[in-house]
Amino acid sequence: MTGSPRIVALAGGVGGAKMADGLVQAAGAECVTVVVNTADDFVLYGLHIAPDLDTVLYTLAGIANPVVGWGIDRDTHATLGAIAGYGRDPWFQVGDRDLATHILRTEALRSGRSLTHVTADLAAALGVRSSILPMTNDRVATMIRTPDGPLEFQDYFVRRRQQDEVIDVAFDGIEAASVTDEVRAAIAAADLIVLCPSNPIVSIGPMLLLPGLREALIAAGALIVAVSPLVGGKALKGPADRMMTSLGHESSAAGVAALYAGLVDGFVLDTVDAELEPRIASGGMRTLVTEAVMRDAPDRGRLATEIVAFGLSRARVPA
Amino acid sequence: MTGSPRIVALAGGVGGAKMADGLVQAAGAECVTVVVNTADDFVLYGLHIAPDLDTVLYTLAGIANPVVGWGIDRDTHATLGAIAGYGRDPWFQVGDRDLATHILRTEALRSGRSLTHVTADLAAALGVRSSILPMTNDRVATMIRTPDGPLEFQDYFVRRRQQDEVIDVAFDGIEAASVTDEVRAAIAAADLIVLCPSNPIVSIGPMLLLPGLREALIAAGALIVAVSPLVGGKALKGPADRMMTSLGHESSAAGVAALYAGLVDGFVLDTVDAELEPRIASGGMRTLVTEAVMRDAPDRGRLATEIVAFGLSRARVPA
Repeated sequence: MTGSPRIVALAGGVGGAKMADGLVQAAGAECVTVVVNTADDFVLYGLHIAPDLDTVLYTLAGIANPVVGWGIDRDTHATLGAIAGYGRDPWFQVGDRDLATHILRTEALRSGRSLTHVTADLAAALGVRSSILPMTNDRVATMIRTPDGPLEFQDYFVRRRQQDEVIDVAFDGIEAASVTDEVRAAIAAADLIVLCPSNPIVSIGPMLLLPGLREALIAAGALIVAVSPLVGGKALKGPADRMMTSLGHESSAAGVAALYAGLVDGFVLDTVDAELEPRIASGGMRTLVTEAVMRDAPDRGRLATEIVAFGLSRARVPA
Repeated sequence: MTGSPRIVALAGGVGGAKMADGLVQAAGAECVTVVVNTADDFVLYGLHIAPDLDTVLYTLAGIANPVVGWGIDRDTHATLGAIAGYGRDPWFQVGDRDLATHILRTEALRSGRSLTHVTADLAAALGVRSSILPMTNDRVATMIRTPDGPLEFQDYFVRRRQQDEVIDVAFDGIEAASVTDEVRAAIAAADLIVLCPSNPIVSIGPMLLLPGLREALIAAGALIVAVSPLVGGKALKGPADRMMTSLGHESSAAGVAALYAGLVDGFVLDTVDAELEPRIASGGMRTLVTEAVMRDAPDRGRLATEIVAFGLSRARVPA
């Protein structure tokens, strides 16, 4: 490794975006590549919406809504109101400024540009100097099986507020999809790879199942560090805890570590979960026990700085 | 004719929408069908924009911006601002509420619905009880030939503010397009047909050139009355006067009447043009000389009431 460390973060939505922002603070924007889950992308009113990409984009551009973590700060909702006036259900909160992203993304995709190129254009226009890469240019769609039948992910997540029991999760189209060359190259060149504190089932999960991505991680020379999205057995945000339980996993940092076993070299867990550390370490992972909850921007930078030091403190153990 | 007269108005943008609104006041919403020019439709940021349809729609829904005549009253422009923030030229004023129309229209067209059905759905959702019919479901695009080369219509009209000299006007795709069955049926059933005070070259013009529409007008049993968009030789709005001159027509009510000769039975002109009345009448048209400028909503109703009385006062002279 020469110069600044090159860091690749695998991210879902809000938790991933916060971690990515911390890594930018810790290592510098140009050194960070964020690989983003696209399995919860969907089409709304004919527009291609990429919730996780948008959350990472807006966060790194410094325009994210600081209260909820997604959407644009102080955005208005006049268009959505008018769409409701036309009799359509405004179940998904699309802001007016936010809508510009969806409109221009959809236009570019229809003109034949790849999601990778579109995302790079949008990020550049917003002054983002990190690289934001969708995991794939192909369509993958998370489907949630519930007692009431299968639900598209945003139906489950937003419209029905994650109230359904999750019996199974499937990723439509994933066998035919492939990781992009850009993601593969970034992983190969990385000095450190961070699995962000995102939902291990529906955010990190599809990335690890995407043909070519796990293989790229395994072949990478960099150490892979995962950050637990579960603290004290609870998800900081979203339904990860209940989803873990209903799918037969332990809803804890140790349960997450077990999902990542065989892939991840280092595991970061919160001090409240310190008692789980020996179990995780006994599974062969190095551990970092620290304040892992990012309450504000300085928190993100502090946690990321610790993770970078932890991740770079040792070369990878050859497989 | 039994019961209320059925009126078909052929309309372009603002002048046509005002006339349509007047006819609704005069005859009742359910009795009015507005056939609207679509040759200035275009695609912006991947969205299908239909400026004349929207102007008629918003006017009849009572939500049009009363100052400029197009767009939605007190609309905001947050999305357009964000699109500009992405580096795109915000040359066409798309409001946030307005955008809902473009988004839902585009979605429906892409799903395979016809522009006729989409327009009916939008109008119904906004509580419009008149029938608003696009002239065709096919793509027709007005092209303006200028000394600097050809321009798409909205480029000429909005972006370049009608400053270019118009050497010629062509309607791309018009030979392959056809009038809809709905327009044909409305014309056949009409008791009175009104050519609104819209630009005779680029608003009424493409309708009269559209395969099947002129034939339907000629075959109609109803009297056809045209309202001059030129008063005192000047267009009330837009470039009709300069366009008439540069294309070799007289820029006056008489020049407009000459363009409609052989098709129109009655012609409505403003009192300031009373001296032109004998020339127009000598061409075989009946004439109505009145206050033909619609300055406010009551003006529209008053003018329309006069036109309906004028148009229904005599049966059509058989050809």
